[in-house]
Amino acid sequence: MKHIYLDHAATAPTDPRVVEAMRPYFTEVYANPSSFHSFGLAAKRAVHDARERIAAHLRCREDEILFTSGGTESDNLAVEGVIGAAKLPKAHIITSSIEHPAILEPLRRREKEGTIDLTVLPADRYGLVLPEDVQKALRPETVLVSVMYANNEIGTIEPIADIGRVILGWRTAQASAYPYFHTDACQAAGYLSMDVQKLHVDLLTMNGSKIYGPKGIGVLFGKRGVKLRPMILGGGQEKNLRSGTENVPGIVGLARALDLSQDMSSLESERLAMLRDMLTEGLLRIPKSRLNGHPEKRLPNIVNISFLDIEGEAAILYMDAKGMCASTGSACASQSLDPSHVILATGLSYEAAHGSIRFSLGRSTTKKDIQYVIKMMPGIVEKLRHMSPVNLDMKHFVK
Amino acid sequence: MKHIYLDHAATAPTDPRVVEAMRPYFTEVYANPSSFHSFGLAAKRAVHDARERIAAHLRCREDEILFTSGGTESDNLAVEGVIGAAKLPKAHIITSSIEHPAILEPLRRREKEGTIDLTVLPADRYGLVLPEDVQKALRPETVLVSVMYANNEIGTIEPIADIGRVILGWRTAQASAYPYFHTDACQAAGYLSMDVQKLHVDLLTMNGSKIYGPKGIGVLFGKRGVKLRPMILGGGQEKNLRSGTENVPGIVGLARALDLSQDMSSLESERLAMLRDMLTEGLLRIPKSRLNGHPEKRLPNIVNISFLDIEGEAAILYMDAKGMCASTGSACASQSLDPSHVILATGLSYEAAHGSIRFSLGRSTTKKDIQYVIKMMPGIVEKLRHMSPVNLDMKHFVK
Ligand SMILES: Cc1ncc(COP(=O)(O)O)c(C=O)c1O
Ligand SMILES: Cc1ncc(COP(=O)(O)O)c(C=O)c1O
Repeated sequence: MKHIYLDHAATAPTDPRVVEAMRPYFTEVYANPSSFHSFGLAAKRAVHDARERIAAHLRCREDEILFTSGGTESDNLAVEGVIGAAKLPKAHIITSSIEHPAILEPLRRREKEGTIDLTVLPADRYGLVLPEDVQKALRPETVLVSVMYANNEIGTIEPIADIGRVILGWRTAQASAYPYFHTDACQAAGYLSMDVQKLHVDLLTMNGSKIYGPKGIGVLFGKRGVKLRPMILGGGQEKNLRSGTENVPGIVGLARALDLSQDMSSLESERLAMLRDMLTEGLLRIPKSRLNGHPEKRLPNIVNISFLDIEGEAAILYMDAKGMCASTGSACASQSLDPSHVILATGLSYEAAHGSIRFSLGRSTTKKDIQYVIKMMPGIVEKLRHMSPVNLDMKHFVK
Repeated sequence: MKHIYLDHAATAPTDPRVVEAMRPYFTEVYANPSSFHSFGLAAKRAVHDARERIAAHLRCREDEILFTSGGTESDNLAVEGVIGAAKLPKAHIITSSIEHPAILEPLRRREKEGTIDLTVLPADRYGLVLPEDVQKALRPETVLVSVMYANNEIGTIEPIADIGRVILGWRTAQASAYPYFHTDACQAAGYLSMDVQKLHVDLLTMNGSKIYGPKGIGVLFGKRGVKLRPMILGGGQEKNLRSGTENVPGIVGLARALDLSQDMSSLESERLAMLRDMLTEGLLRIPKSRLNGHPEKRLPNIVNISFLDIEGEAAILYMDAKGMCASTGSACASQSLDPSHVILATGLSYEAAHGSIRFSLGRSTTKKDIQYVIKMMPGIVEKLRHMSPVNLDMKHFVK
């Protein structure tokens, strides 16, 4: 049975070299890094070494790397941590309509509860957030701007450095330390530069599972001087910013995964970009199809296509039966049948958004896989359209 | 070089059988359990199966098991989740002075910020929290009582079922769903019954790393109907109570670890209790020493002894040089040189608390190890006392 995994943006397999790097930390160097004895020290050293290596990729200091349980916790901590530490009666936050729910949900809850003012910037039809929109939204009480580095559904790469410069300019003019600039780089980490100095960000989220590292581990980069209120309190680990016994195998695994993916990033980006373009071209030959996201400013591994008159979920099941794993929108949204908020934000109609499929390529993807997908998809789409009660035309793509 | 690990209460090695159980979930069944395709379904099934097995040990329903990143997060979620959902202007919480910082710290922060009223019950000289003290502290606005199942520093087992009955009685009398009763069972899970029905608890914390499972994974049992405000928001995983891609290998590993430790719990408890008593007896032959915790109601694996006129931290280093790993108090507190809040809570003097050492036994511990410790400790204590500027007598043990 064929098995083509095109859901790397949902989660990637853990690289065997990462598993190998983690192995001794389960059964040999297993002590608690906070323990005082030499055995604890060995675990502490492993954590320190991982932190240094990650810091080198981000071009930041070792003590600016904070370990969490994943991308969601890092995003939540950026949001809650900054708002909590700023202690304004009503802080103002700027974010975008295409962010991951790990950013939008905590912000929406606070907005609903009336503890913040929230500006959700629109995205253009390619999913781009415009620096001038950020500029216009800034206010003296803005404490945080959060815009993702690359979108997990459509792959659009956001102009982070440009937005960073807008924010730097504003802070200088206001002689203020605020707003901080956060970016969610979970999807970007495998393919783009993580240099936080060039990106001009104060906070950055990364996780293990998208870069062929383990699940359940994440990083929040927080620039020196950035004030955060911890969310999880206890034994005082991670300089009191994130308590809990350090997940040593996870930390070691994440560092190894980042080493590997940054090492192979340019070659692998090139290889995947070719396959991505081949897939895009092949799929767009299907009638009434449309590429979502930016035509050039895009990750090398994500192809998101809307097909009119089909249900994305049904397509996933039909594809599955033919040995192809893909997804509609993001994995988390998969549980609900609502169309993707990201696709809708780019101006697509509800109907078109419903027929969107994300193919996310990765290290295992071959040219043969792509050829197979291109061969199989027209039949699947046709069959689904045959069953469909509606028959829309091209003008129905947009709202 | 000798290597005797007596710090199992800080963290235990991951059982090789647990590592083996986790292995396929890194590189084979690696999909996101929220993904719609059959590959995602396989991961989802693994999570479901783990949840069912854990539920069986706790004698609860599968949907009452919530996965978190560890004991600290579970404790924090119990505290913040209950307080947040209760929505009282000023809720009242009851806890005890011997709790883990993962309970005390979030509560203290809220108390300081004025958003709760906090009652911290004393412990008696054995570290016991008395059900009648809980009874007296209950108020109509009490939303949560949190008392740990077994203490991580001195090993005292608390009368959880008795406290549970007190709370049930109060709730019936008040015709109220509150207060909920939470217990932190991290240290108990390897040795005691986890039957939440017999314990009469509404919420229970457990983690992987204390039961020879992986680090970075925990459970919060939450009885049906218990209202929790989520701390970490995003993709809506774990019935929206804890978002973030599920840590599938961690979840599978935790279930396997609990299976194994509950299976061997009675035999292993018996074996360790013998070694524990042998160690206690041997160490108490050292002059000016005292056993901390309850003489009978204690975990089979923790021996905590105070030696007058020595510094616990110095002893740890001297022991380390002789191949013995132990700790003062808990691993988290190790970073600070303050004496343990638990030992102080049992009425010991500051001086005596400073000279406390926790020996925590485990699966690797042999009779020979214990004999070695008993042989070496008198010399170490003597050497340290020789260097000590003070020379207290027995009456200085207590405040
Ligand atoms: C852009 C982005 N942010 C955050 C997350 C959440 O990360 P995690 O699932 O590790 O919590 C994901 C992946 O799910 C993501 O793609
Ligand atoms: C009683 C108790 N509660 C909570 C914790 C915290 O667990 P974790 O370190 O997994 O977050 C520990 C261990 O550190 C513990 O012993």
